[in-house]
Amino acid sequence: MGVPLVELSTLQHVRTAYKARLPPALQGSHVELVRGDSTVAADPADALVISRSFPLTYGLPLVHLKAPSGTENGNSQSENGVSQSVPLRVGVVFCGRQSPGGHNVVTGLFDALKAHNTSNVLLGFVGGTEGLFAQKTLEVTEDLVRTYRNQGGFDMLGRTKDQLRSLQQVNDARAACEALKLDALVLIGGCGTNTDAAQLAETFTATNCHTKVIGVPVTIDGDLKNQFIETDVGFDTTCKVYSQLISNICIDALSAEKYYYFIRLMGRRTSHITLECTLQSHPNMVILGEEVSTQKMTLFDITKQICDVIQARAETEKYHGVILLPEGLIENIPEIHALLQEINDLLKHDVDVDILNLSSKLSPWASALFDFLPLFIKKQLLLDRESDGSVQLSQIEMEKLLAQLVDTEITRRTKAGTYKGKKFNAICHFFGYQARGSLPSNFDSTYANALGHVAFHLAAEGLNGYMATVTNLKEDVTNWRCGGAPITAMMSVKRWLRGPGVSQIGKPAVHPAKVDLKGKPYELLAQNAGRWQTDDLYCNPGPIQFEGPGSDIKTVTLSVEDQDYVGRIQELQKYLDQVKEMVKPGCPPEVLKVALSSMASVTEVLSVISAPAYRGLRPF
Amino acid sequence: MGVPLVELSTLQHVRTAYKARLPPALQGSHVELVRGDSTVAADPADALVISRSFPLTYGLPLVHLKAPSGTENGNSQSENGVSQSVPLRVGVVFCGRQSPGGHNVVTGLFDALKAHNTSNVLLGFVGGTEGLFAQKTLEVTEDLVRTYRNQGGFDMLGRTKDQLRSLQQVNDARAACEALKLDALVLIGGCGTNTDAAQLAETFTATNCHTKVIGVPVTIDGDLKNQFIETDVGFDTTCKVYSQLISNICIDALSAEKYYYFIRLMGRRTSHITLECTLQSHPNMVILGEEVSTQKMTLFDITKQICDVIQARAETEKYHGVILLPEGLIENIPEIHALLQEINDLLKHDVDVDILNLSSKLSPWASALFDFLPLFIKKQLLLDRESDGSVQLSQIEMEKLLAQLVDTEITRRTKAGTYKGKKFNAICHFFGYQARGSLPSNFDSTYANALGHVAFHLAAEGLNGYMATVTNLKEDVTNWRCGGAPITAMMSVKRWLRGPGVSQIGKPAVHPAKVDLKGKPYELLAQNAGRWQTDDLYCNPGPIQFEGPGSDIKTVTLSVEDQDYVGRIQELQKYLDQVKEMVKPGCPPEVLKVALSSMASVTEVLSVISAPAYRGLRPF
Repeated sequence: MGVPLVELSTLQHVRTAYKARLPPALQGSHVELVRGDSTVAADPADALVISRSFPLTYGLPLVHLKAPSGTENGNSQSENGVSQSVPLRVGVVFCGRQSPGGHNVVTGLFDALKAHNTSNVLLGFVGGTEGLFAQKTLEVTEDLVRTYRNQGGFDMLGRTKDQLRSLQQVNDARAACEALKLDALVLIGGCGTNTDAAQLAETFTATNCHTKVIGVPVTIDGDLKNQFIETDVGFDTTCKVYSQLISNICIDALSAEKYYYFIRLMGRRTSHITLECTLQSHPNMVILGEEVSTQKMTLFDITKQICDVIQARAETEKYHGVILLPEGLIENIPEIHALLQEINDLLKHDVDVDILNLSSKLSPWASALFDFLPLFIKKQLLLDRESDGSVQLSQIEMEKLLAQLVDTEITRRTKAGTYKGKKFNAICHFFGYQARGSLPSNFDSTYANALGHVAFHLAAEGLNGYMATVTNLKEDVTNWRCGGAPITAMMSVKRWLRGPGVSQIGKPAVHPAKVDLKGKPYELLAQNAGRWQTDDLYCNPGPIQFEGPGSDIKTVTLSVEDQDYVGRIQELQKYLDQVKEMVKPGCPPEVLKVALSSMASVTEVLSVISAPAYRGLRPF
Repeated sequence: MGVPLVELSTLQHVRTAYKARLPPALQGSHVELVRGDSTVAADPADALVISRSFPLTYGLPLVHLKAPSGTENGNSQSENGVSQSVPLRVGVVFCGRQSPGGHNVVTGLFDALKAHNTSNVLLGFVGGTEGLFAQKTLEVTEDLVRTYRNQGGFDMLGRTKDQLRSLQQVNDARAACEALKLDALVLIGGCGTNTDAAQLAETFTATNCHTKVIGVPVTIDGDLKNQFIETDVGFDTTCKVYSQLISNICIDALSAEKYYYFIRLMGRRTSHITLECTLQSHPNMVILGEEVSTQKMTLFDITKQICDVIQARAETEKYHGVILLPEGLIENIPEIHALLQEINDLLKHDVDVDILNLSSKLSPWASALFDFLPLFIKKQLLLDRESDGSVQLSQIEMEKLLAQLVDTEITRRTKAGTYKGKKFNAICHFFGYQARGSLPSNFDSTYANALGHVAFHLAAEGLNGYMATVTNLKEDVTNWRCGGAPITAMMSVKRWLRGPGVSQIGKPAVHPAKVDLKGKPYELLAQNAGRWQTDDLYCNPGPIQFEGPGSDIKTVTLSVEDQDYVGRIQELQKYLDQVKEMVKPGCPPEVLKVALSSMASVTEVLSVISAPAYRGLRPF
């Protein structure tokens, strides 16, 4: 590993030479870093808990990177240029699961480091977190980087456990950073990794460890999403690969008109990938985990809903179709969720459970459900757990379970005379591993490369517990904004009711964002779902193109969302500055009077809509 | 269906405008059709049987299409030009399974028909063969064709049963052709379809039906391959889609280093797709049906072979890998083949069999094997048969069976102390339906379009029982040769030993060509298999590109094979013509003498190497 042994294809060669464009802030040899206002967690109710857990890294300011020419703002605090004098030593580690574009974070970071001082050193940890604990490093060099620019996978350095959490792990990480004299450690991954990064940053500060910790949002799932993060590296590519395959299957279904394809998609707990793929390829039906959970749909409800669609289509002589499911669906079905909780509890307490004796150890209700499930699902529910104790979603073939339940229900309806169509035939698919190693799209290559550059600037500035951010991504690269946000500002706290009046509170964490059922991408689905269900308006985005028309298309999610939060924060600052400028001491009293009354009204409105009673209405 | 309801993506739109290049022979408004020598079946032993079954269509001449400017050859028989006076009525039907590029055969045929006489009519049969039997047609128009140029799937017209064989079916087809006054019927499909086309042509001639039948080689499997057919429409695209996914998985495996991926690939009885994908993506291991069958490998042998590789890799600390299998593997394993034969016999005689009672109805030997197999495979072996009585290969999860057997064997070796590595983890995949509807590659678009044009010229010439051919495909389009070959010349006859001295003989058919274990593609695999097994020399061809570098790459199989058979036939004719020219009556006697003695020696050599004793050594 590390030594590029791979034999590159023509296209891989071409891609190594692709030059990702840089946003204006990163183009020059000098970059100005502007500190903005201090940040708060989105939910005021969580702020206290978070600030107690992260006393040293909570409330840090948002930072913006700018090309130094635009010096209209005098807050400039520093510039990172080729003149940087003390060489930096930076470590980088792949923590999360492989996601297309991950390599470009490393190559972007490397390019920025070397551009600013050729004596800067980038150490890659070989074998992910385990390599970090064992201090197994590889110096990243131009020779190494050359082969991996714009390539898929995490194989330049590899990855292992996606966890850096236990006391032992944190201590080992600190020992590594100190032994290697790292100025900064860059962690590449999703929600879990960035939560770990925040914890590491806090601990390092508390224990006077010199190393600063920077996180970079890289996960196919697209669920590390908040005010500061618009999308994650890899989501674009992964959705495009799956959509290509889904569309091929839609066209296959339409050509032979005899199969219903049940396709389950990777994406862990949330359904962002499934929603995006639906918007790209227009299958006949999709069931999102968030819908099921909000509407408290049972397995029976879902089965019925699918059967109703199949029956309606049969009435227009259609016996084919494509149905998408997210792999996280299972955890969103209330009765299965409850069953899983019981099984998890048993497994956690090392109770000796197997398929035969499990029923007797469950509550009567869970036991009845377990007995109802087919053997293959029973086995899969008992498979080894993930490192965080949850089920291995990828291993549970929900698509087969649903296809089987639908088959049974259609047979019942046929006997009852309510379904009069031809025999129902299902083919099941799981699309997961076949996309994570894909060559990254132009978007992911460019986004990841920019994030790598940003991570360098945050590190050079000595910022700690920040995530690198690039925003306004739906616009052209020339309008992208670069900066950093404290990870603690992206955290929230979960609360569970454990009994009447007894609630339990979780650790602050960067939680996966669920699909927003009031958001624009979902609205787009809701508007079209009816047409897609009855007519076959399949759309084939085709294989990812790297040149020519369509090669710079972004996800539908990114394109329809209205996300430029950081831009608006900056716009607000401009208004505040303007008011200050227009109402300087010495201005006419009537101007001051109007300003006071206007601002009083603004603050009143804000305090009302920020009150807890309103919080349920907010998009975050 | 037929009304383009689909919503095209950006890339689909771009592709509708792609102009497939035409080989020189097809470029002008006039095309010259040259009749060559009459053809024979490759195996002289089969010739008699075939000629008896096809008395009216066996032994027809090979035909070549040429641009009329090159009139050095005086054999010109006719020209199809814009001047063509009587309008043609042609029918087209998708018979085989969907394969990328199929639409372009129709659009190419349409373009050629309309270019030569705007009154020519192309009728598409809606719903494949069933549409043909029911005379359900749709006139192909520019409006219709515009949406489907260079698009995947068969959804412009659809398909149903891939069979046109029974007396009833043949009679219905003839009735349709007569009722619709078709001058020609073009069948699109693989080996089965083209065998049916030959039968239809023979029957139509025998019954004085005016309609001529033309076949076009379209199948993802790549197994309709012989002296006249170098590759099939769809093989290129399908292999590229699978290779993209396989390579993504290779890179995934290398990134996390903890899984062995067992990937089964579509391709029916033969392993051409699996071989090509191996050559494109360099997985660690592949097992071809043809190897298993030639070496008479048992399930145990295959398991052992895989385990030996896993063990050797574990010794160098490698716990990941990718193993490819063709879906046809199962039929090549001798003991499973025998079991399947017994089950098929029982099913054919409508014996009431189920999983519980089957064992008692099998021979002791087959019964023991059946009992040994896991439940899921047992169920799959008993699923409904294909229309030709064979098992549904796509439904039998051999990859899961092998992964399970390997797991058991590795556990055994671990206990025995011979395997000392980490736990073996397998993830299984089947890649099938997700490629058949793909946007066709530039190669498939161009090849299919050319075949459509060729089909028109054969039809216009009134040729019957021919397959459209385009050869010398490994070269640039400017060097492609166009023509037609009688389907009967591609046929062979199967013989089985049914007991001592008793042999049974099958009907003549265009049989699927197996992977040639002495051929160049296999040789390339054999040369590299060792390196790929131990080192991880994964290569990622990436998603199919339609523009830019790599967009015109062809399959490795096509590139390394030395296939220009038709070109050599033409070259031979030139030599024979030259001899005739140089030894005209009146030439010096010594010239005649040398010619005679040289030609005598040539014919002697040829008669020796054409003798049955030598036949085993020939590539065909």
